[in-house]
Order: sequence, then structure tokens, then C-alpha cells
Amino acid sequence: MKKIAVLTSGGDAPGMNAAIRAVVRKAIYHGLEVAGVHQGYAGLISGKIETMHLGSVGDIIQRGGTMLQSARCPEFTTDEGQEKAISQMKKHGIDGLVVIGGDGSYRGALALTEKGMPAVGVPGTIDNDIPGTDFTIGFDTALNTVIDSIDKIRDTATSHERTFIVEVMGRDAGDLALWAGLAGGAETVLIPEESFEMEDMIERLKSGHERGKKHSIIIVAEGVMSATELAERLKTSANIETRVSVLGHIQRGGSPSARDRVLASQFGAKAVEVLMDGKKGRAIGIQNHQVVDYDLKKAFEKAHGTDTSMYQLSKELSI
Amino acid sequence: MKKIAVLTSGGDAPGMNAAIRAVVRKAIYHGLEVAGVHQGYAGLISGKIETMHLGSVGDIIQRGGTMLQSARCPEFTTDEGQEKAISQMKKHGIDGLVVIGGDGSYRGALALTEKGMPAVGVPGTIDNDIPGTDFTIGFDTALNTVIDSIDKIRDTATSHERTFIVEVMGRDAGDLALWAGLAGGAETVLIPEESFEMEDMIERLKSGHERGKKHSIIIVAEGVMSATELAERLKTSANIETRVSVLGHIQRGGSPSARDRVLASQFGAKAVEVLMDGKKGRAIGIQNHQVVDYDLKKAFEKAHGTDTSMYQLSKELSI
Amino acid sequence: MKKIAVLTSGGDAPGMNAAIRAVVRKAIYHGLEVAGVHQGYAGLISGKIETMHLGSVGDIIQRGGTMLQSARCPEFTTDEGQEKAISQMKKHGIDGLVVIGGDGSYRGALALTEKGMPAVGVPGTIDNDIPGTDFTIGFDTALNTVIDSIDKIRDTATSHERTFIVEVMGRDAGDLALWAGLAGGAETVLIPEESFEMEDMIERLKSGHERGKKHSIIIVAEGVMSATELAERLKTSANIETRVSVLGHIQRGGSPSARDRVLASQFGAKAVEVLMDGKKGRAIGIQNHQVVDYDLKKAFEKAHGTDTSMYQLSKELSI
Amino acid sequence: MKKIAVLTSGGDAPGMNAAIRAVVRKAIYHGLEVAGVHQGYAGLISGKIETMHLGSVGDIIQRGGTMLQSARCPEFTTDEGQEKAISQMKKHGIDGLVVIGGDGSYRGALALTEKGMPAVGVPGTIDNDIPGTDFTIGFDTALNTVIDSIDKIRDTATSHERTFIVEVMGRDAGDLALWAGLAGGAETVLIPEESFEMEDMIERLKSGHERGKKHSIIIVAEGVMSATELAERLKTSANIETRVSVLGHIQRGGSPSARDRVLASQFGAKAVEVLMDGKKGRAIGIQNHQVVDYDLKKAFEKAHGTDTSMYQLSKELSI
Repeated sequence: MKKIAVLTSGGDAPGMNAAIRAVVRKAIYHGLEVAGVHQGYAGLISGKIETMHLGSVGDIIQRGGTMLQSARCPEFTTDEGQEKAISQMKKHGIDGLVVIGGDGSYRGALALTEKGMPAVGVPGTIDNDIPGTDFTIGFDTALNTVIDSIDKIRDTATSHERTFIVEVMGRDAGDLALWAGLAGGAETVLIPEESFEMEDMIERLKSGHERGKKHSIIIVAEGVMSATELAERLKTSANIETRVSVLGHIQRGGSPSARDRVLASQFGAKAVEVLMDGKKGRAIGIQNHQVVDYDLKKAFEKAHGTDTSMYQLSKELSI
Repeated sequence: MKKIAVLTSGGDAPGMNAAIRAVVRKAIYHGLEVAGVHQGYAGLISGKIETMHLGSVGDIIQRGGTMLQSARCPEFTTDEGQEKAISQMKKHGIDGLVVIGGDGSYRGALALTEKGMPAVGVPGTIDNDIPGTDFTIGFDTALNTVIDSIDKIRDTATSHERTFIVEVMGRDAGDLALWAGLAGGAETVLIPEESFEMEDMIERLKSGHERGKKHSIIIVAEGVMSATELAERLKTSANIETRVSVLGHIQRGGSPSARDRVLASQFGAKAVEVLMDGKKGRAIGIQNHQVVDYDLKKAFEKAHGTDTSMYQLSKELSI
Repeated sequence: MKKIAVLTSGGDAPGMNAAIRAVVRKAIYHGLEVAGVHQGYAGLISGKIETMHLGSVGDIIQRGGTMLQSARCPEFTTDEGQEKAISQMKKHGIDGLVVIGGDGSYRGALALTEKGMPAVGVPGTIDNDIPGTDFTIGFDTALNTVIDSIDKIRDTATSHERTFIVEVMGRDAGDLALWAGLAGGAETVLIPEESFEMEDMIERLKSGHERGKKHSIIIVAEGVMSATELAERLKTSANIETRVSVLGHIQRGGSPSARDRVLASQFGAKAVEVLMDGKKGRAIGIQNHQVVDYDLKKAFEKAHGTDTSMYQLSKELSI
Repeated sequence: MKKIAVLTSGGDAPGMNAAIRAVVRKAIYHGLEVAGVHQGYAGLISGKIETMHLGSVGDIIQRGGTMLQSARCPEFTTDEGQEKAISQMKKHGIDGLVVIGGDGSYRGALALTEKGMPAVGVPGTIDNDIPGTDFTIGFDTALNTVIDSIDKIRDTATSHERTFIVEVMGRDAGDLALWAGLAGGAETVLIPEESFEMEDMIERLKSGHERGKKHSIIIVAEGVMSATELAERLKTSANIETRVSVLGHIQRGGSPSARDRVLASQFGAKAVEVLMDGKKGRAIGIQNHQVVDYDLKKAFEKAHGTDTSMYQLSKELSI
């Protein structure tokens, strides 16, 4: 291994820059050359590849987004696209690749590895939905952004004694909603992994109101239903008035939290070690408080799952 | 004047608590008694009135929302409702009232004054739309919340080279959008006070793109049209892909900015002075950097207007 | 177990309120009565004990500090003081106690347990220095406060090409400095657990400067030496000019981060479960991503230690 | 006027980047060429001058510090230094200069103007101490940073019932301390512009304590005395225990507030207009809510003064 490359792919997540910095500096520390690929797999195919130096990643650890940018690339799902990418890499003398992104990005890493180009996956997504790692880069920052928003909404909810529905990201994964519900003191949390009965929820809201709750906050992951739909159902089934807030894209941005910067630094450095060790087709993660690498294929096996004890706790503490 | 009361009415705004604190402490400093009315005019009618002490307003200067809460009160728009309120105030020995809120709240203050109960209006609304004052309590905080959100969205916009439409509050008033556009470095700002041509806007977006702009941010005040509608029009008229973010209720909450706390403190204190001076039917404001009081009726006269030089500047700086 | 009590002791830490809330609600959820003790062990002796209800802990999850307050209590280190406390608890019908605090607080919990009053320790301190738990309540928030400050200082450091020394809390524990160094991209981190040579440090600073580093940030834990002393030594030994920033008490306050709120909620609830299970002399912690309880005495055994891999990584990434 | 240059000088202040952006874009909008000078007057002498384009100032409006950097330059206080600078400017075809900084920077602008090179001063300093303008760029951000710190310290002050002394920047100017005192709800504010009696202050602290104040916060501008000295004096004269927090350099950094970004944008644009109009030796400011230009010499005349009504109000509201 003489020269490695790094790219970011899929939706951007806070901490991706910290991970890029770690890859670059760790590689240089160990005497490797390192290149940055712009715009994800699209840039890998078209050759948007630049040598990176220590200074290339100065003053980026604190920045949201990704300095290498990201882009969708349907071409890369084809054999032809993947081979073009490998040619480009060979042309640039690249022996290994670090891919920072979500599960879509991991499929690309696996394809490259199977075609002979060692690639390692670093989990960068706010959704915290990669099997094999307890946390992904960006989750902690997104969670704090959601909490900050809920705190603001609570001011109005309390002042006007209103019920608010806050829709957070998470099509298939409820971690953001679940953690936000627990940290935000929400009365109700709806996540894709747990079924719920409209009647139970209405019952909870009503009994809370009877006990004198000044306000209620309901968190719904977008994958369950939209906040607007939920508001309509509460109105039609139980005549409960609610206000709706869809947090949207602010959840993706912002300066990464300390935790995300540390995780990103550890993951980026580990990815370089894994490539230097000649390992192939590995993913990086944190399991039980330890940074680890594991078979990239495990990342596709099944959903990361949700912590039912947290779900239960959230219910108990919001009585 | 021996005893005054204070209430908050209309939508809550950050800094209302700082204003309540100022009213209470300024009154006590001058030897007056002071009462807090809960839930706005509704509480005034139903007698949710409590004596307030120095300690009642301890540790609230930094809190969003309003500790006295707010509520809608259709009954108060009637003569009967207003007379009930005056009876309650007399029963509690109250000689004057400070009303913190927006223009709807001011109408109530005017009605009470005309019925013999001196009331003074303190502008508390994030919309910055009260004629006669350059700034309202809550505007600066809401503006910073919007800017913080735009900064987050810009991370993603840059990383993915996308155009984002950000919808901010403001049904009739464009100040929040206009200031946010200038402070957020938005390419385009649409406000109710200024007409715009779809063609010009499309032209701007396209020429910016040709000059190499990595991303564009469009701010639209909700009173112009919804972000969703604008996105559809850009898509159908010019095949421009955009992402939409509706900031919603987070704009109303949060710990007040320093500026809002200072303004609220000055306004609350001035309101007490005005009542002590025996003035009737006055509104408090800041004009040309001076805290002033003026005829409450002027607050209804015409729109606060928008600063066309800022609008022009916003265009010039986002080329 | 029919009635339990909760107190906070030692230096306040963000998330203590979330832990109090969890103790109160979890207890009520399971049909227990619960009392809050004001001002720590001092209040336990003097009987500042109040019954708490669901509403007593409404709207506190997001607040820094501790609503139950904390205070030093030399009297409680004596047998007599401890017996007074037990009498008070018996008088109030209290069967068990949750103590939220640092290691000093734990000694009190152990003493009570040994005198027959079951007490459980919940780790609440920004120092992250309790053996047996990977994280303490407050650490994550303090870390983010430090990072936020470093980001601000970096603006000036870069603009003026200066070297800054930032002193963070940690008399015996270097976790805050170490994590902050890694997350803040500091060039050098000095912690009590690792010896350092002044010469190496100077060498690092000089070689960084020669390679074109625009600025340097040095983090020093207060237990190593003061920032002022370090600045003087760098000046006298190597004529290196630095600026000094002592972060001080801001590290203790602020709204808790999402992570601290979740941890506090889990810990508080677990403490109630442990008491309900009739366990005595236990401490709550998180080990390898699992919330656990363990023998309170283990919390005194030896230092929590520091993560040498993080220390090494911090060095490698700041070349 | 065909080509202008812009530099930042003196201590960095949040919003300087927004001002640079405004100068560059406004100039280009009007068909001028524009150059950026690195490292202030030192770079002007040594010729660190680069042409700036629209893209040179992309994505900087939200960044603290100054992308053009700043540096001290004793050489520039000499005639020789100033002439070198003018030669460099002529060499680069520069007809006018925008200087963003504090009063030291203004002296340089005046000297250049008197030597025939039109220069205009834009007030960029967190101290808010430039005569002729109600606000300087950076003040609002620094104020919010101070307030945020006070809010954190208040958490601990309340939890432990302690008195804190918070030292803020301001050698000769008390605006930051005064505004922070009012916005932070401090009990006592000590500023250079107002004399104070130790006895009165002690009296205030004691009477507040007797009335049941849970905590006290004292703000002291560094120009009055250090927080440490004040703590010692309170201890020796009245046996009052306090804790000390020196906010230090965090006050200079951070992403600029919305207000500072707007002010910086207006000031930068106005500076370009003033140069285009052929005016010489002008300073930019905001007076009574209007952006204005005025004779640069007025900026040296006398202290900006402090608002005694705010000082009085601060006392009245903290009873």
C-alpha cells in the first residue's frame, strides 16, 4: 500500500470532514500518499482526484458538510462504471480506497473490493442505521440539532398549552426519533421499528391532559407517516388540535459535535490501518465502546435494530 | 398609580420573559405593587391574576416563551368581555396595564384605555411588524435562529451543489426574510412588500450557475407563497431542481439573544414609567436608537414598511 | 421499598436535572413515593426534604445545574452527621436513596449503606473520572462547551497566526482535555495521566511552524499545570509567544447535550430499579454500551484511567 | 476609481469576513476591480496583495476571524512604512483602500489619506468603542458569547448559591460589560466610565442576600480591575466568598450573529460607495439606525461614551 484515496458518498453528515482529515493525516503519518476524490463515485469515474497534503485538511475538523462533496452516481452501479473507476484509480497509482457514507456507499465499496481494489467503509450518515456499528458519524450532531429544535418548540408549546408534532428524519430507522424523544422529554415517539395503535396514543394524550400536563410533544420518524398526516388523524379521530413542525434539512448540517469529531477521527484512522494491514472488504464501526473492523457484507445483513429498552424507558419517563 | 398588571398576548416571542421581569422589577423599584395575569386577556377576564414579587421573575431573563402564558380570547373583542376584564382589574386594585404582544394585543390595550383603564403596549412579536418601532422583542432571536438554520442548510447545499428554498415566517411582513437573506448570504429573497417576476428569478439562478456558484439559497416569506409551491413553479417553468425547508415553529422559541433581552428590559421599564406619568394609550418602541413612547393608534396606521436599501443590497451582494 | 429520596451532591453537572426527573418519574411509574432532598447531604441532615410529583420535574430535562441544589457538608463525613441523616430519612419514611454526584458523594452513599440505609450512586460530574463507568453525566456537555470555545479561539489563532494555550478542567483526570484535544484538532494535549517532556513539546511546535502551520492550539488539563505557567515556561525556554485562555466555570453549566440527557435518564431509572430489587451499595454506570450496576466500592479502587490509543491518535492527527 | 483594496487590521472581530465579502461584491457589482491585502498593513508594505473575485468570498459570511488575517505592524506608524505601502498600492494599480479595524487601524487610514491615497475606515472591533458609530462590527456577537457564558455560570451559581465575578473584555470601554450586565441579569456591573464605591457594592450584595437572592453575578470590565483582584478585595473587606471567571479570548471568535453580518454587509458596501464618490478620509458608521459616513478624524475625538440610562436601568432591574 503506497497510495490511498478517500471519498464521501450519499447524504452528507456532520463529521465527514473530520473523517477525511483523519484519513489524510493518518496516511501521511505512516508515509503513505493520499488522494481526495471529489463528488463521490462520480468523481472517481471522471477522475476528479487530487493529491492531499497535511494543509489540505487544516481547519476543517469543525465544519459541517463534506469538503470533497458528494453526488449521486447511477453509472457506478454498473460493471462498466466500476471498471472505469478502477482504471482511474490505477492511473493515479491508488492501491486502496476509504469510502465514507451510508449503506448505498458501502455497496460501491464492496463492488470495488470484489473487482480487486481494496475498499473500506466508514459509516457516515445521520440515520445511525448501519448494522455492525453502535454509532455512525453524524448521528450525535443531528440528534443535538433535533433536541435544540424541540427545546425551542417546547417554549411555545408551554406558553400556549399546545400539542406539537415534530417530524424527524428516518425512513427505515427510528434511532434519531427514539433518542430525541428520550432526550427531549417527548410524550410520544413513533418509530418504524415499533408498531403503534392510534387508540393508545390518543388515550395517552388525553390522560396526560387530564393529569394537568401543560403541553405535549410527539416525535414521529418520517418513515412512520408525515407529521401532517398524523395531525389530521388526531384531529379526525379524537378532535385533538396539534401544531406541526417538520425539521427537514437542518438535521443534516452544522458543526459536528465533539462526539462525532472523535468518532470520525477514530474511524478515519482505523480505516487507514485496515488498508495498511492488507485487509479487504472491511467496514469500520464502534461496538461496545471499541473501534473495530468487520466484514463489509455484515453491514447489509439486517437492520441495525432499535433499543427496545430505550423505547420502554421513554414511555415510562413521559407519564 | 399604586398597582399595575402585566400580561402577554398573541404568539409568544423570545424576550417576553425579560420584558415581564423588567415591568415587575421597575414597578417594585418605584414602590408600586405589580400583578401578573396568566393566559393573556382570557386570564384577565377570568381573574387569573397573581401578585408578583422580585423573586417571581428570578432566573427568567434567559428563558424563551412566556411564564405568564398566552391564549387566544375571542370574548375580549366584545364590549362585555372588556368590561369583565376591567371589573376584575378593579377588584384587584389594578390602576394600569402593560400588554406585551403584537398588533392584535394592541387593539385590546386600546379598547381598555378607551374604557378608562390605562394600558400601554410593548411590542413583542418575532415579525417586526409594528409601526412606530424599528424593532420588536423577539425579532433578533428569531433572526439568529433562521441564520443558524441557513448555515446548516448551506453545508448540505454546498456538499451536494443544490439549490435550497427556505421558508421563513412572515405573512404580511418581510423583515425576517429580508434580514435573514442579507445575513445568510442568500441568492434570492422573496418578501410580501416587493413584487417579483418569476422570469427574473430564474434568470438570476441560471446566470449564477453559469458563473460557477456551487449552491443557491432562496429565502421566501410565507406570505409570498409556500416553499413547496415555489419549488413546483421552478420545476415546471425552468426545470430547476430544488430542495425545500420550512423552518416553522422553531423560529418562535429559544433563549433570547442579548439584543432582545436588552430591548425587552428597556421597553418593560419604559412602560412602567409611562403608566407612572399618567399617560394613556401609549405604545413603547425604539426609534432611531432611542426608546420612546407614542400614540398607540399609530401602531395601526400603516405597515411598518421594509427597508428597500437592504433589499437592493441583498441583491448586489449575492451576485 | 415504598419511598425513596434523591439528592445531588458535589459540583453540579449538566444532566443532573434529567437524572432527577428520571428517578422521580420511574419511581412514580412503579408506584413508589419519591422525595427530593435540597442542598445535598446538608439538606439530608437538616431535613430539607420535599415530596415530589410528576409535575415537580416538568420542563427541567433541558436545564443545566441542579434544581435540588448542591452544597458542601463537612458534618456528613462524621458518624454523627450520618446518623442524623438516617433519622431524618426514617422520619420521612424513606427506605432508599439515590445520590447523584462524584466520588466524594459516593463516599456518603457508602457510609449510609453501611449504616443500613440502602443508597445507590449515580455518576454526575463533568470530569468523567468515576471508575466503573465509561461515561459520567455532564462530561459530554462540558466537552462540547470546550470544543465550542476552542472553535472560537481558533478563529483568532488563525487570523493572527498565534499559538494559544487553553486550560480545561481536570485536576486528576485528563479525559476532558484528551477528548477536547482530539475533537478540537489541538496540536498538543497535556494530561495528568501522561508524562511529557518540555523539549518534545517545543520541538513539535517548532517543526509544525516550519512546515507552515498557521496556528497552534495547546490544551492543558489544570492538574498538569496552569496555562499561565506553561506560557511562561514556553517563553523562557524557547522564546515561544503564546496567548492563554482559562475556560473556567463555563465548563460546568449549560443545557445538557442529547447524550447527557439520555445517559442521565437511563442512569436515574436504573438506580430506581436497583433500589426496588433490594440491592445495596451499588453504583450505576455504562460499560461497553450497556447500562449496569456494580459494587459502589469499585468506584474508589483506582483511577478510571485514560485511553492511550486516543492520546496517540491525537498526536498522529495533529502532525 | 478603477481598483480598490481591502484589509483587516487590529484584533479580529466576528463579521470582518462579512465586511470583506461586501466590499468585494459591491465593488465587482459596480465594475471595479478589487484586491485583498493579507495581514493588514504589514502585507500592504510587503505586497501580500491578491486580486479577489466573486468566488474568493464565497462561504465566508458565516465565519469568524478574518480570511485576510491581521498582524501588528510597527513599521507602518513611520512615514517610510506608509510610503512603501503607497508604492505597493500604486504598483498594483490600487486607487483606494477600505480598512476594517479599530482605532489603531483608523490612524493608518488617516495617514494614507493625508499622503494622497484615499482610505475609508470600517469599524471592526468587539469593544464598540469607535466614536461616531452606535455599533461596531463584532460587538453583537461578542455580547452574545458573553451572555451565553453568563447563562452557563448562572446554572452553577444557582445550584450552589454562590457569587460569581465574570471578567469581560474592555480596557477603556464598558459597553460589552454594560450590555452583558443588563442582558445577563447581573446584580452589579463595573465599567471604566463609571466610578464606583466598594462600600456601595458590598452593601448591595449583602442586602440582596438578606432578601433571599439565591446567587449573584458581578460583571467587571477588565479596564476597571481584574476579576481576581476584585475577588480578593471582596474577601478582605467584607469576607464575601466569590468565584472568578475570566472569559478571555472566546469573546473574539465565533460565527457572527445576524446583526453583525447585516451591519458588516451594510458597512462594507457603504465604504465602496464612499470611495466611488471620490470622498477621502471618511469613516463608516451607524447613527440613529442610519448607515452614514463621517470625517475619519471624528473617530479620534473623544470616547464613544456610555449610555448612563442603561447603567441606571441595570441597577434598577437587579434589585
